[in-house]
Amino acid sequence: MKETVGLIGAGLIGVSWAIVFARAGYLVRVYDHNPEVRAQLIDKLGISLTNLEAHHLISDAESVLRRVEVMDTFAESIHDVTYIQESVLERADIKRATYRAIDAQIAAEIAVGSSSSGIPGSVFTEGLRYAANYLVAHPVNPPHLVPVVELVPTPWTSDATVQRVHVLMEAVGQIPVRVNGEVEGFILNRLQGALLREAWALFDEGYASTADIDKTVTYGLGLRWSFMGPFETIDLNAPGGVRDYAERLGDLYLSIARDRASPQAWSDDLIGRVEGERRRSLPVDRLAERGEWRDRQLMALALYKAQTKNDDTDP
Amino acid sequence: MKETVGLIGAGLIGVSWAIVFARAGYLVRVYDHNPEVRAQLIDKLGISLTNLEAHHLISDAESVLRRVEVMDTFAESIHDVTYIQESVLERADIKRATYRAIDAQIAAEIAVGSSSSGIPGSVFTEGLRYAANYLVAHPVNPPHLVPVVELVPTPWTSDATVQRVHVLMEAVGQIPVRVNGEVEGFILNRLQGALLREAWALFDEGYASTADIDKTVTYGLGLRWSFMGPFETIDLNAPGGVRDYAERLGDLYLSIARDRASPQAWSDDLIGRVEGERRRSLPVDRLAERGEWRDRQLMALALYKAQTKNDDTDP
Repeated sequence: MKETVGLIGAGLIGVSWAIVFARAGYLVRVYDHNPEVRAQLIDKLGISLTNLEAHHLISDAESVLRRVEVMDTFAESIHDVTYIQESVLERADIKRATYRAIDAQIAAEIAVGSSSSGIPGSVFTEGLRYAANYLVAHPVNPPHLVPVVELVPTPWTSDATVQRVHVLMEAVGQIPVRVNGEVEGFILNRLQGALLREAWALFDEGYASTADIDKTVTYGLGLRWSFMGPFETIDLNAPGGVRDYAERLGDLYLSIARDRASPQAWSDDLIGRVEGERRRSLPVDRLAERGEWRDRQLMALALYKAQTKNDDTDP
Repeated sequence: MKETVGLIGAGLIGVSWAIVFARAGYLVRVYDHNPEVRAQLIDKLGISLTNLEAHHLISDAESVLRRVEVMDTFAESIHDVTYIQESVLERADIKRATYRAIDAQIAAEIAVGSSSSGIPGSVFTEGLRYAANYLVAHPVNPPHLVPVVELVPTPWTSDATVQRVHVLMEAVGQIPVRVNGEVEGFILNRLQGALLREAWALFDEGYASTADIDKTVTYGLGLRWSFMGPFETIDLNAPGGVRDYAERLGDLYLSIARDRASPQAWSDDLIGRVEGERRRSLPVDRLAERGEWRDRQLMALALYKAQTKNDDTDP
């Protein structure tokens, strides 16, 4: 008999979390404060699950769906569960109210992870009774197709909590990474931001079009990064490993970094030019359709990864 | 009847270029100044091509191999060819000498691309007779598996040359991107450098291990970036597209950028700590084996991409 988890908030991320836990065999209780969202939830989930089955990522959509129960009250959704994933709106006041309610009602021993993508957990868990049990467990959208989860403890989160959520995330097939401290943007968005800053600056200075910068990643850097990270990439890119690489290329990277020592906001004009190129590639009324294309690509890639997994393990 | 191309320099990159052109049906004349390299070239190529055939990336290794001819002299390798790809050692003096020799011997109308990964073409083509025909055509290693090629004209490269090499690269299945100016590191290494700087800084400050930073890319950012670039990624990541995204997240990225406004060299101590973590994951005597793993991963990914290409096109 698998455990039961509670999900608070059933927007895009919450629905995807329901898939993550239910497909791993967990029973899932979901609550959203919006009755309309609750009413549509099972239908929405059904469509996603049928889609996953069509892409061979799950074998029995119906039995996965049967493990998800939509609760009429907040209290029921967190009653008798062994973990809670909170995915309410990214607003500090709403997160605070949610954690006060959770804190008042849960049993001491369960961990609660927040899907917060930017607000540090300390902002909404300070002073609560069970604050040691709360941390950020930040997924990428959608978590059922992009498995990394950043575990970001607050200063008062216990190691046992981090460890417990780490084990749970691995048990449901996600890839937890440990972030030691509430650094702004956590790890993933900082890495993305660093690359974006350079991309925007190169475009701004006229060195390349947005399309060509995108191709440089898609047909270059991104191919390697889809199966090995930046450290392993450079470790394998010089005969003597990463030290050899750093000694060969450290000066170049430092020199480039010095070009970027005066960070500036993306101006309205610059945003307009980027937007102009993007809209010529993809009119605004086709954004949604292209989002579905992205999800199909992610599903195909997930299947490919599952099929090649034996050769994909870390050494 | 396909055209004939000349390749100067038959190290790792040169051999891979031979595969690129020969598998596209071109006749290839290769020269390396080192007689040992010349003597081993066909055997080396044969192994690579057999490997590609085993991975279903080419159907007839033997006929591809038959299109490659190793020449005994520099002059023969560039005689009667319609394009030259130069991949000699990354040293300005060697590049200069090579281009002087090419310039003295070629017919005016052919283009010459340099595999230079960092030295701008202007450093080794200035003042030459046919300087308008020379540009950097920087591949990623190995070009036969990672298709992006950065086309970087010098101030005196003609537009016609850029255009001609662009068409040729597309004709042989590579993905050319146009870099407007000799910016240090070109596009690809600047983007990689930006992400690396943040990765090294996060590790240095103790926020995450090298392994967890790698996972954040491999199981997060890199999945998306393997089929869409950073601009398209953010364009699809906010309901209203890239402007909407920039307005939501611009301040966060600016704030993160300000943390990184004082770039510092990777210290020997920091390099040692990164090296330490990497060597615990992968002992130095297994670097070569892991490099083969990487190439198998790239081959599998190339096959996957070829098979899913219909759904992979730009809108």
